[in-house]
Amino acid sequence: MTAARLARYLPVLDWGRRYDRSAFANDLIAAVIVTIMLIPQSLAYALLAGLPPEAGLYASIVPILLYAVFGTSRALAVGPVAVVSLMTAAAVGEVAQVGTADYATAALTLALLSGLFLMALGFLRLGFLANFLSHPVIAGFITASGLIIAASQVGNIMGIKAEGETLTGLVASIIGHVGNANAPTLVIGISATAFLFWVRKGLKPLLRKAGMGPRGADIATKAGPVAAVAVSTAAVWVLGLDALGVKVVGDVPQALPPFTLPNFSLDLIAQLALPAVLISIIGFVESISVAQTLAAKKRQRVISDQELIGLGAANIGAAFTGGYPVTGGFSRSVVNYDAGAETPAAGAFTAIGLAIAALALTPYIHDLPKATLAATIIVAVLSLVDFGILKRAWSYSRADFAAVTATILLTLTMGVSAGVTAGVALSVLLYLYKTSRPHVAEVGLLPGTQHFRNVKRYDVLTQPSLLSLRVDESLYFANARFLEDLIADRVQADPRIRDVVLMCSAINEIDLSALESLEAINGRLHEMGLRFHLSEVKGPVMDRLKGTHLLRDLTGEVFLSQYDAVRALAPLLVRAAQAQAAE
Amino acid sequence: MTAARLARYLPVLDWGRRYDRSAFANDLIAAVIVTIMLIPQSLAYALLAGLPPEAGLYASIVPILLYAVFGTSRALAVGPVAVVSLMTAAAVGEVAQVGTADYATAALTLALLSGLFLMALGFLRLGFLANFLSHPVIAGFITASGLIIAASQVGNIMGIKAEGETLTGLVASIIGHVGNANAPTLVIGISATAFLFWVRKGLKPLLRKAGMGPRGADIATKAGPVAAVAVSTAAVWVLGLDALGVKVVGDVPQALPPFTLPNFSLDLIAQLALPAVLISIIGFVESISVAQTLAAKKRQRVISDQELIGLGAANIGAAFTGGYPVTGGFSRSVVNYDAGAETPAAGAFTAIGLAIAALALTPYIHDLPKATLAATIIVAVLSLVDFGILKRAWSYSRADFAAVTATILLTLTMGVSAGVTAGVALSVLLYLYKTSRPHVAEVGLLPGTQHFRNVKRYDVLTQPSLLSLRVDESLYFANARFLEDLIADRVQADPRIRDVVLMCSAINEIDLSALESLEAINGRLHEMGLRFHLSEVKGPVMDRLKGTHLLRDLTGEVFLSQYDAVRALAPLLVRAAQAQAAE
Repeated sequence: MTAARLARYLPVLDWGRRYDRSAFANDLIAAVIVTIMLIPQSLAYALLAGLPPEAGLYASIVPILLYAVFGTSRALAVGPVAVVSLMTAAAVGEVAQVGTADYATAALTLALLSGLFLMALGFLRLGFLANFLSHPVIAGFITASGLIIAASQVGNIMGIKAEGETLTGLVASIIGHVGNANAPTLVIGISATAFLFWVRKGLKPLLRKAGMGPRGADIATKAGPVAAVAVSTAAVWVLGLDALGVKVVGDVPQALPPFTLPNFSLDLIAQLALPAVLISIIGFVESISVAQTLAAKKRQRVISDQELIGLGAANIGAAFTGGYPVTGGFSRSVVNYDAGAETPAAGAFTAIGLAIAALALTPYIHDLPKATLAATIIVAVLSLVDFGILKRAWSYSRADFAAVTATILLTLTMGVSAGVTAGVALSVLLYLYKTSRPHVAEVGLLPGTQHFRNVKRYDVLTQPSLLSLRVDESLYFANARFLEDLIADRVQADPRIRDVVLMCSAINEIDLSALESLEAINGRLHEMGLRFHLSEVKGPVMDRLKGTHLLRDLTGEVFLSQYDAVRALAPLLVRAAQAQAAE
Repeated sequence: MTAARLARYLPVLDWGRRYDRSAFANDLIAAVIVTIMLIPQSLAYALLAGLPPEAGLYASIVPILLYAVFGTSRALAVGPVAVVSLMTAAAVGEVAQVGTADYATAALTLALLSGLFLMALGFLRLGFLANFLSHPVIAGFITASGLIIAASQVGNIMGIKAEGETLTGLVASIIGHVGNANAPTLVIGISATAFLFWVRKGLKPLLRKAGMGPRGADIATKAGPVAAVAVSTAAVWVLGLDALGVKVVGDVPQALPPFTLPNFSLDLIAQLALPAVLISIIGFVESISVAQTLAAKKRQRVISDQELIGLGAANIGAAFTGGYPVTGGFSRSVVNYDAGAETPAAGAFTAIGLAIAALALTPYIHDLPKATLAATIIVAVLSLVDFGILKRAWSYSRADFAAVTATILLTLTMGVSAGVTAGVALSVLLYLYKTSRPHVAEVGLLPGTQHFRNVKRYDVLTQPSLLSLRVDESLYFANARFLEDLIADRVQADPRIRDVVLMCSAINEIDLSALESLEAINGRLHEMGLRFHLSEVKGPVMDRLKGTHLLRDLTGEVFLSQYDAVRALAPLLVRAAQAQAAE
């Protein structure tokens, strides 16, 4: 393996070689800030995934290190994120009971499967598969997931048990248990939520007024959750609120990430395979779009296939160190970038910071109320909810609107897997439907030019014996017969037609079905005594048509341009156009 | 309902009004010829479908009449066809035992479901769904079906029981039972097959030499099966071969088509629904392509949606008159056309002819050997087998080759439903894959023209600060990220680039995902200090882009033509091109 190929698979060799003191200082500062933000976030997302809080910390340590070695983004911060945590809870909840050892082991297996799948996609260069998740489907899915996540935490805020994987199920469960709400928990939960909302919305203007720089103010607000955690933990400890029914995090082992083994039972793998694929693809799509956005700011390069390998390595790392599925998170990556991270070393330093936290801080979070963690989740995920996508989709395209609506409704009512699967299937079907009835314009000559335009949009010249059609779509099996029907109808309706020209300027591809349809069209027009011509056939399309029956048996000609075709087939029309232009 | 709308749904009102003596004479002659051809064919296809022979006659009577009222093709002959008979046997064989009353009733239910499905497609104008069966998939399916049908009749030729729904299963069954072959049956079967092959290949040249006209000779050869039936029946009757183990047709009721009721049990409907859909679509595709080919010869019109209604009515008719699923057959329709049929009345007269046969001729076919019918089937279906599609597909497109190969192999080894379903799925996936990595050309100015061509194909001028890309595909979710990656790569690799122009001449559609990708590209180029421009955006695409963030925030401009773009962004390049052209 050459050095260049090695560097392709190990981007660390590239940036590591040029690492210097200035980059080190910047990375270190960024790492401190991200670590402070990640401690409560990691604990909270583990809670969301149905796992013990330390799993969140563990999932943030080794995966970050592995991504730093294999990933291509300079600023991406890898670890647990909200949507993937929700999907983990949904998938693992199907095979094990929350709180059991089996549950934690199944989460490891899920991370391993997801890691292997991502790696396989990366090595086989199949990252394009992620493209079938259209933007509206992702947006709808993220919005619906945000709502489900928020609803899933309402129980923790109230001190009741609210369970369900759908919004409808959760709401029913909350209503059913609302009578059992625990007053002290409710006080902590609501005040933490209100405080965090205020930090997000009101603190920054205040700090700016007090003279703090915009970047500093921005970063300071990220410490809000830490403050909420510290204050509420102190309150529980001082007032002994856990005796009053406030649920706390409890004992957390004071240790580095342990070495863990996933469960390799084929039965479990079969049950978790599909969720692993969905988690991988959704995680990858989220991660790559953040990575590309941040890379562009410094004209850096992110390589999709290598990103798959980086994320795959991170997930495999999570599987063997007590974690669960991870991906590149949006908010943490942006904080990392804004705090000045220059290289993936910032991620490595963050991992060290979190390892120190796992070793040193864990005893102090025994009394941390779950309601506070729930509040941080609710405030974080509500920024994911964006019903604006519905409006944007509606005003731009009805098909996209249908896809996003179906995704949102099915995710909310049937769960995350059903929602995203239905969204993908609907996107594909609608696309095929659209291309199966392409836009076909009858074109005429624009006087004074050599341009041909739609007779319905422009005042153009035509001649009854000549039918010129421009198809605005590649020809393939789904629309081949459409064209047969269309030409048969036009020709049958107008007995004056003697020549049919298919203007191929927008045809990027003709598959075998379409080729045979064109041959059938040619044969049928021949039976009627009409000639069939082609014009403006693109180079690659023409290359493939050479040697086919279509060209051999074509009753008409292949013209380089539509103007050539009209000059040959309707000279009077050209003269009339020139006369009209001269007037 | 206006008269025009009524005429749309009842094409008989159109041609019936102008019916005259000359058309009557021509239709009557065609009907006599088709009737002679159809009697043995109908009996044989019923055998293939696993039904008593009279079912084939019944399926040819009322369905033809109903199609004559509702169909739009003048020459299409509707009735049992080989592939649909095979599919019927496969579907009904799953739910009932051959030879039982349940089996016949299930075939009626299948015809009813197929009829209702076709009607629904027609009224909802969803005929385009049939387009997802690409030509290579159909060709592969028909070829494989032809082989399976031929193999399924080898047992009848040999007087053994050979069962199976796949070629592999049938071959295994034939080999397993080959020791039980019945000698007299074998003699009849082989000589009938040899005779029918000779009629097909050798008789026509002989008749032509003897001075017969080409059309007459063609039609005379169609009477070959009748001769084989007559001779072999006489042989059985005279020599008492049925006592020697030659299986004969046996008692056939001497009656008009009976009124029958399909079984409406939901359970049965659920089991037959998918096969009914496949049978309907395959039958429709076969029928419409024959209809369109014949209509073109006389510049007549076939309306797809009305054809669905016509075929739907025919199948519903078959369900209530002792038949089974039918469609427009290729060979019978061509014979009908060649024999001079002018209107669907020819079909009606054929129905009368077959009704007379059902009443008067049935006693005489008691001794008709099944081996003779098997021979007519084998000789008929081997003309369906066309492995040439493999060669054509290979030389034209690897994707089409993959689809046809998969269809043939899966049909032969897994059965008809699996084969056709896999073929459709593979076609769609390959199409999506192709469009997900579109052809993108970097273009430059062709000196002396205003044309822009691929820098790899033409000797064109470019300028390092200007990157002009032409994407030869509509932009949609599956290729949106591909474009993001591509532009990011090119821009990152070449720091001289200052302006990026996307030439949109081949972009027929931009969906919401692609719009958001373009917005992301624009934003990222902006971060790098580059401008992003569009050129040659089509009218309908531009209409939708108006009012979007993309146009509002576009860092560059939208140019009407690529030449305008280059004139504005690289005036030196234009001057250089002019100088070069002037030399």
